[in-house]
Amino acid sequence: MTAAPAARSARQRVLMLSCPDTPGIVYAVAGFLFERRCTIVQSRQFHDPDSHTFFMRVQFAHADGRALPVPGLQRDFADVASRFGMIWRLGDADERQRVLIMVSRFGHCLNDLLYRNSVGELNLDVAAVVSNHPDLALLADNYGVPFRHIPVTPGTKPEAEARLLEIVQNERIDLVVLARYMQILSPELCKHLEGRAINIHHSMLPSFKGARPYQQAYERGVKLVGATAHYVTADLDEGPIIDQQITRVDHSLRADEFVALGREVECRALARAVRWHTENRVALNGHKTVVLH
Amino acid sequence: MTAAPAARSARQRVLMLSCPDTPGIVYAVAGFLFERRCTIVQSRQFHDPDSHTFFMRVQFAHADGRALPVPGLQRDFADVASRFGMIWRLGDADERQRVLIMVSRFGHCLNDLLYRNSVGELNLDVAAVVSNHPDLALLADNYGVPFRHIPVTPGTKPEAEARLLEIVQNERIDLVVLARYMQILSPELCKHLEGRAINIHHSMLPSFKGARPYQQAYERGVKLVGATAHYVTADLDEGPIIDQQITRVDHSLRADEFVALGREVECRALARAVRWHTENRVALNGHKTVVLH
Amino acid sequence: MTAAPAARSARQRVLMLSCPDTPGIVYAVAGFLFERRCTIVQSRQFHDPDSHTFFMRVQFAHADGRALPVPGLQRDFADVASRFGMIWRLGDADERQRVLIMVSRFGHCLNDLLYRNSVGELNLDVAAVVSNHPDLALLADNYGVPFRHIPVTPGTKPEAEARLLEIVQNERIDLVVLARYMQILSPELCKHLEGRAINIHHSMLPSFKGARPYQQAYERGVKLVGATAHYVTADLDEGPIIDQQITRVDHSLRADEFVALGREVECRALARAVRWHTENRVALNGHKTVVLH
Amino acid sequence: MTAAPAARSARQRVLMLSCPDTPGIVYAVAGFLFERRCTIVQSRQFHDPDSHTFFMRVQFAHADGRALPVPGLQRDFADVASRFGMIWRLGDADERQRVLIMVSRFGHCLNDLLYRNSVGELNLDVAAVVSNHPDLALLADNYGVPFRHIPVTPGTKPEAEARLLEIVQNERIDLVVLARYMQILSPELCKHLEGRAINIHHSMLPSFKGARPYQQAYERGVKLVGATAHYVTADLDEGPIIDQQITRVDHSLRADEFVALGREVECRALARAVRWHTENRVALNGHKTVVLH
Repeated sequence: MTAAPAARSARQRVLMLSCPDTPGIVYAVAGFLFERRCTIVQSRQFHDPDSHTFFMRVQFAHADGRALPVPGLQRDFADVASRFGMIWRLGDADERQRVLIMVSRFGHCLNDLLYRNSVGELNLDVAAVVSNHPDLALLADNYGVPFRHIPVTPGTKPEAEARLLEIVQNERIDLVVLARYMQILSPELCKHLEGRAINIHHSMLPSFKGARPYQQAYERGVKLVGATAHYVTADLDEGPIIDQQITRVDHSLRADEFVALGREVECRALARAVRWHTENRVALNGHKTVVLH
Repeated sequence: MTAAPAARSARQRVLMLSCPDTPGIVYAVAGFLFERRCTIVQSRQFHDPDSHTFFMRVQFAHADGRALPVPGLQRDFADVASRFGMIWRLGDADERQRVLIMVSRFGHCLNDLLYRNSVGELNLDVAAVVSNHPDLALLADNYGVPFRHIPVTPGTKPEAEARLLEIVQNERIDLVVLARYMQILSPELCKHLEGRAINIHHSMLPSFKGARPYQQAYERGVKLVGATAHYVTADLDEGPIIDQQITRVDHSLRADEFVALGREVECRALARAVRWHTENRVALNGHKTVVLH
Repeated sequence: MTAAPAARSARQRVLMLSCPDTPGIVYAVAGFLFERRCTIVQSRQFHDPDSHTFFMRVQFAHADGRALPVPGLQRDFADVASRFGMIWRLGDADERQRVLIMVSRFGHCLNDLLYRNSVGELNLDVAAVVSNHPDLALLADNYGVPFRHIPVTPGTKPEAEARLLEIVQNERIDLVVLARYMQILSPELCKHLEGRAINIHHSMLPSFKGARPYQQAYERGVKLVGATAHYVTADLDEGPIIDQQITRVDHSLRADEFVALGREVECRALARAVRWHTENRVALNGHKTVVLH
Repeated sequence: MTAAPAARSARQRVLMLSCPDTPGIVYAVAGFLFERRCTIVQSRQFHDPDSHTFFMRVQFAHADGRALPVPGLQRDFADVASRFGMIWRLGDADERQRVLIMVSRFGHCLNDLLYRNSVGELNLDVAAVVSNHPDLALLADNYGVPFRHIPVTPGTKPEAEARLLEIVQNERIDLVVLARYMQILSPELCKHLEGRAINIHHSMLPSFKGARPYQQAYERGVKLVGATAHYVTADLDEGPIIDQQITRVDHSLRADEFVALGREVECRALARAVRWHTENRVALNGHKTVVLH
């Protein structure tokens, strides 16, 4: 039933790019593919009239089902890319990205990500779970994922971040997922991880930034609560938004019931953001995102 | 097909109340109904542990289908109400409330309210449409509703509000609906209309208060835009929320397309708030609402 | 605020096509555009592995803002199209399609379409409203749209359809919208209008086909009711689905309240389907649709 | 953060009842509570005009916070109940029901239920997981729940059902949850478990009954897929519906991606149904349900 993405997209390749807009971009990309006898499985393009930037994602395969070695494609495409000043990434459509998941004590997003990954809905190679608390070691262990306990106190924070960074480098991490990690990263670390760290904030940003958003929502008497998955930036809760999900609440629910309902929307928003990022569907566009389905 | 609420609830009565919580409230109300051989059609109660307030709405009818004259019920119930210190309202379930709708130049909410009312989905007696612009006169006229043009400039605002208040009093208005009225009411007028004026704000409050919320939402790059129907208070965009509705947006939409999608959710949130208010389902609970379906 | 689509897409052109899949389609289209110094505003492509068909929609403009005369583009593109066996349409992005709206006695979809069109959210040239009942003449008149009353009885149905067809031809109608038209069209007429007639069915198809779907939904005790906008085919309620919308119901609502809630989702589904069709976003793919946003 | 329901409702009791409608029901219940100096935390009543049945749920506590022994309450209330011919249940609001979860090979609903239960969002005492396949033993084990493998073949079905029934009886099971159990229960077993067995069907019933609903939905080209949690009856996929959840799909998704998106809505619908059932919020009303929030 749960055909892995790998099976779905055997021998498919994906190219994601952005560059200053000008005539001829799609023509150049399509020519590159045509010369190699490729057909397009799905593709989407978008021109942002504010930033005058062109975004394109194309998923393709050889018309006769032959293999298309990625290194060769990358080498050849570099010429096209440099002509247009592209930011680009070209790889296997079913490439497993190496992911580091950070948590504190709430395990719902971690449980959700690990389960989805185990049934092939995500395509992650989870290199480690890092936490400032020991509580979720067993959950990681159930999925055979190494768990690293790195406590953080005001005094040890620089050291803790250094250890984290070491893991990121040693494990060749593509993506850091803050799955309800309750420590604020330093501006330096945010900068270092720019565009490859995703956080889940438990409110419909920009509503209820900062601490205890469900309590804030309860006190304001809102009728909907939400969650926001966004790229991490040094500017807390202001990073580019990838997805938002929402659920209905009413007067009869207490703040802790907002929390329980919120878990669902947090899981949904974070899983979508992680999936789209690892499928190379998300591009940064200033402080916004472009998501190409 | 569109059975009017009147037809649905012939001879039904509705009682809405709130009071400090104590044992015996429901017993007293149920006893009052039992003595008069009434059956309960639907009822809901809620105790708020924060404010220690009890809320109750009950819709009832005589078991044998006899008429229950409202003035007699009101007179008799006053005793019960005073015993518990109730804020209450008792009336026909199909009572038409007298409504004043205020607009500026955007007519979608007005069009929506008048259409819903014309097919019996709302139960309003629309006494007048008041606007600071002449644009929507024809729309009001199409539904046979008097249109009053009251221009507002910084200099004439007190005079304009005086004229508005005169209409409210002369026409015995139960509810004022600000259906995208783009003038800010004075604190005195807000105070005067407390609990009987509903505004639609075109964002998911508390996000994007103030002017041009869709433009703000576009610039922030959110993935959902919403609308909030709330009671008017002197504290702008901070009134008790009655309903919120939301719709999905993405990077490919311009700010004016946010506006177009937003019209739908504004209509939906405002129509629900107006309906629930006029069905006596909404109670104030400090700066929140309790909505009893 | 409500910038008309016309203003948004001044001088933009749109090309929608489908054809058997083969390498080189996008290359050929992009080459055609590049030769004419066009930039792509937005585009989407999709390959259906079941039918081996390729679908593409591209919205484009001259890089220097020059006009691109449509007849010339059409003439030149015909060569490309014939090479790949394309079904295609190329026109102004802000072209107003000529629309005929058919109704019976329920006016909510008609009111919704005419209002949206009046504020520039749709881009229709409504040539006429045709009805088998006289009830909605005034509503059409309010928007300055000719109203044609064509009664239908079992005996006069062929004649009524002949009159309808005459209007379609004389008025050069691009799209027929059945906005709660309660007569079943003959198979011949369905065939004649294939791909250019949209119906709204008031259920989440394939649930509750046929008559009185809200009553059926009420009797089954469902917790969600929906509406389906689909292309008309001779096979009743089986046409290719363009959009579906849904809303929550519960045990406390009567069948006539299902009807009232259903009006909202009918309007939403039908308006989306009409907008997407007239923006050349919808392609037929066997008995399914491909909708390219 | 995840205050367990137990903590929320300490010393609260809940009464759920239905009976033929007549004046005095609420008066009698409220009198019973008033005599015992109880206050109402939340309550809801509903009169079904089709079946002439009255439904009531009331959650209450002693005004001074004293304990209210359940056996005494039950004994005393029996008099009231028999006077009105009530079907009723009275217990602790935080009573843990004993649950048996049945699965086959898809573990998403099981994983979801066990996780929600572990953080106090559900209030289940999961006595066992029973499966006709051995695959999910480890998942049950991770949560410390006994796993019983009972294979089913056409020949051994009666015997397998006998073993199942033995567990239901020996373990004093209150509720059987079919969490994607892919075997059809015999009419006798359905009858035996009437009103205490909940199934999740992976479609928006009544659409796509029977086998492979996602494949059916894919082939029909629907734009929304859903899931339905319902009480099990001998009439397959026709049981009283407790909850339905839905998610959007489009032409670009394959049937196996419908499956992946469907997992989310299955989990959501089933968890809600189980929670509401175990909170004594769901009453049977013929082949429909009444859910009192």
